[in-house]
Amino acid sequence: MKLSAIAKLIGASFSGSDKEITSMNTLSNATTTELSFVSNSKYIKDIANSNAGAIICDASTVKYIPDSTVALVVDAPYWEMARVTAKFAPALEDRESPKAIIGEGSIISPKAEVANGAVIGKNTTLMAGVYVGSNAIIGDNTILYPNVVLYRDCTIGSESIIHAGTVIGSDGFGFASNRLGEHKKIYHIGNVVIEDNVEIGANTTIDRAVFGTTLIKKGSRLDNLIQVGHNCEIGEGSVFAAQSGLAGSSIIGRNNVFGAQSGVAGHLEVAPFNTFAARSGVTKSIKESGKTFAGFPLMNHRVWLKIQVKLARLIK
Amino acid sequence: MKLSAIAKLIGASFSGSDKEITSMNTLSNATTTELSFVSNSKYIKDIANSNAGAIICDASTVKYIPDSTVALVVDAPYWEMARVTAKFAPALEDRESPKAIIGEGSIISPKAEVANGAVIGKNTTLMAGVYVGSNAIIGDNTILYPNVVLYRDCTIGSESIIHAGTVIGSDGFGFASNRLGEHKKIYHIGNVVIEDNVEIGANTTIDRAVFGTTLIKKGSRLDNLIQVGHNCEIGEGSVFAAQSGLAGSSIIGRNNVFGAQSGVAGHLEVAPFNTFAARSGVTKSIKESGKTFAGFPLMNHRVWLKIQVKLARLIK
Amino acid sequence: MKLSAIAKLIGASFSGSDKEITSMNTLSNATTTELSFVSNSKYIKDIANSNAGAIICDASTVKYIPDSTVALVVDAPYWEMARVTAKFAPALEDRESPKAIIGEGSIISPKAEVANGAVIGKNTTLMAGVYVGSNAIIGDNTILYPNVVLYRDCTIGSESIIHAGTVIGSDGFGFASNRLGEHKKIYHIGNVVIEDNVEIGANTTIDRAVFGTTLIKKGSRLDNLIQVGHNCEIGEGSVFAAQSGLAGSSIIGRNNVFGAQSGVAGHLEVAPFNTFAARSGVTKSIKESGKTFAGFPLMNHRVWLKIQVKLARLIK
Repeated sequence: MKLSAIAKLIGASFSGSDKEITSMNTLSNATTTELSFVSNSKYIKDIANSNAGAIICDASTVKYIPDSTVALVVDAPYWEMARVTAKFAPALEDRESPKAIIGEGSIISPKAEVANGAVIGKNTTLMAGVYVGSNAIIGDNTILYPNVVLYRDCTIGSESIIHAGTVIGSDGFGFASNRLGEHKKIYHIGNVVIEDNVEIGANTTIDRAVFGTTLIKKGSRLDNLIQVGHNCEIGEGSVFAAQSGLAGSSIIGRNNVFGAQSGVAGHLEVAPFNTFAARSGVTKSIKESGKTFAGFPLMNHRVWLKIQVKLARLIK
Repeated sequence: MKLSAIAKLIGASFSGSDKEITSMNTLSNATTTELSFVSNSKYIKDIANSNAGAIICDASTVKYIPDSTVALVVDAPYWEMARVTAKFAPALEDRESPKAIIGEGSIISPKAEVANGAVIGKNTTLMAGVYVGSNAIIGDNTILYPNVVLYRDCTIGSESIIHAGTVIGSDGFGFASNRLGEHKKIYHIGNVVIEDNVEIGANTTIDRAVFGTTLIKKGSRLDNLIQVGHNCEIGEGSVFAAQSGLAGSSIIGRNNVFGAQSGVAGHLEVAPFNTFAARSGVTKSIKESGKTFAGFPLMNHRVWLKIQVKLARLIK
Repeated sequence: MKLSAIAKLIGASFSGSDKEITSMNTLSNATTTELSFVSNSKYIKDIANSNAGAIICDASTVKYIPDSTVALVVDAPYWEMARVTAKFAPALEDRESPKAIIGEGSIISPKAEVANGAVIGKNTTLMAGVYVGSNAIIGDNTILYPNVVLYRDCTIGSESIIHAGTVIGSDGFGFASNRLGEHKKIYHIGNVVIEDNVEIGANTTIDRAVFGTTLIKKGSRLDNLIQVGHNCEIGEGSVFAAQSGLAGSSIIGRNNVFGAQSGVAGHLEVAPFNTFAARSGVTKSIKESGKTFAGFPLMNHRVWLKIQVKLARLIK
């Protein structure tokens, strides 16, 4: 999409030489042909080092944008960014892609659907009711049980098992809101990548990234009815018990263990090798390793046990 | 169904002129051709103003029923009401309805199923594995991702997006129980109506009303793995993050925001424009607006923060 | 599989007369042709009475194994047990079983799939997108709404209703882990049995047993988005509200009622006829009956109410 057309769409003035914008991305990750945005003062620091081809910003932020970068100045950058995502969202299915490629020995149920452009490895099984979107990739020796849905452009590795009804790659929960209480959808241009040797239970949901990738690293184990928000990263060998949930953009180090019905807030980092008891609620980043936590708010598991005893005495 | 037949079914004596009963409803909403019931003394006040054609009640309540209304007197009104719902529940599919009507430009996957009597608007997409029940209605420019299930008689508006695996219109959790610990199913005769410009995430569940409508108003945003119980009403522009849940019959005002894993008990009213932190548990109606709440039991968010600090000190 | 082959697979020495091992099981339930294991000292007491044909154990435990039983000694019995489960896991579908048998009056959607060896009773309905695995059994007058998945070898009784998107029989959350943080899948050889007159909501998940059966007894009622872990047993007439969860191997007596978002930890027993408020977290076995509990950790509901009042005062 031409930069001039984007400027027109969002009502920003634009002069200078026009160029083709290929996609959208964060300030840190945008390339010279990508559009980015700044809507929160905590990201102003990322402007100087951004390679973005153009940046949507407001009048108070435009001064931080270097001369070499095009600034598209609007009143509500987050809202306008959301508006533009609709233009970069791919079609539901790529009808022009070539027919899907199915590897030797793979069994695709006649009741499964594999969209154009998908690539399925060897000895992989897609059972009845499975949907694999355009340009999705699945490795070798992987099983998708009935009614698993893999949205377009997402990837599952080899030697993996996805149980029935799990949804991988749905749009994350993202929208801009205005003062009238209206919400404008942020189309999710990113994807989900699930590495090798991962097992995911039934009716779990893993959202695709806004930009970039929601990543589940190799050897992880996710149980049933789990929510993984957009742009999360789950480290190698990590374990999540049933009904636990991760809000968006949290990065979980390797070999963490989360008990059932636990939760992690957004934009946190959890160091490797910790254990979180059932119902734990993680609201701050964890920098230590080898610890066991519990409670909401989160505390050391031993402290949590002590508090329970004290509370019990208090009542007597 | 004839009133005399209903009386016979539930073992109530009935004299007077017979008439056709067309459906069942609450005391407040029943029309003159509908059957209602009273099984809880707090609804006795609704009897006087009810237009119900007949009312199931017990011997202690019959005195409140006006002479102009037929009273069907039984020992266990709630149990007998449940028994009668089975007679008014429609068939799983209306084989006699005309073939579904599909609007111009809509794309229905050959692997989707649209039952008789359904009406689909223009430029709407139903992907593989979608099921749309008899007499369901979907507006224009709406997308149902793979394996979404819309039960019969339910409605989705225009410009809406429903992500994969979400179930709309399943029977709510309702049954009468007796002293032997047996449960008799209450068939859900109502439906779900989702207005325009609503986005619902993956594997969420929205139950149909017992009688009447479970209503999701325009501009709402629901994330993944959310439960909305029967007869709830979600106000315009309200937002529910993943794994939150609403028990039955609660009415949420416009532009409320519920954090992840929060919950609202049944039969409450929440005033507009409040925010509920993740894991909030709402057990009383909220009459204020513009506030932020947290905790279970629920409290002002600031108070909740103070309690956490005090608890931390207590333990030291 | 020959015992000698199993010994070779896991690197255990084996001498004596070889024999055919037909399956795997717990020490208590294994028959003379089944393989068992001991990896936790608390099960040493079960060795003496076990009928297992062979037992995987480590060097410190081999002394408890009677001379009449074959001991397969390895360094990591749990890991090796997991390795062997892969050999006893049945194929995804039994292609050699006879075609499914469908009872008189049953309606199977052309978009449903019923695998070989399944047996469906009379007047049962399988709607679009339903999957019924090999050798699964469903009784009479039962309804499976769209996109329900019943894995192979599982059973649903008569007069039951399973709402859309529910998954029955997926592998439980089980694996052995080593010091490198790698996990080896435990294939689940058991099944799920759901008795008569059970109603289960939408998008609920019920895991199959590792060995033996996950059992939902007659007359139970499960709402939406519930997790039932492997090897649980839910007593007659028990009731679980939405988003509640049961970890593995817990035994719930008859007519217990669990509120929404409640949870029960693994390996517990709950006596009959108790009520657990919403968000209850049960972490110890309950031996009393007729009580109401709340909170996490769990306490008598009245005590929980008092604590809330005291906490509220504390802050003032």
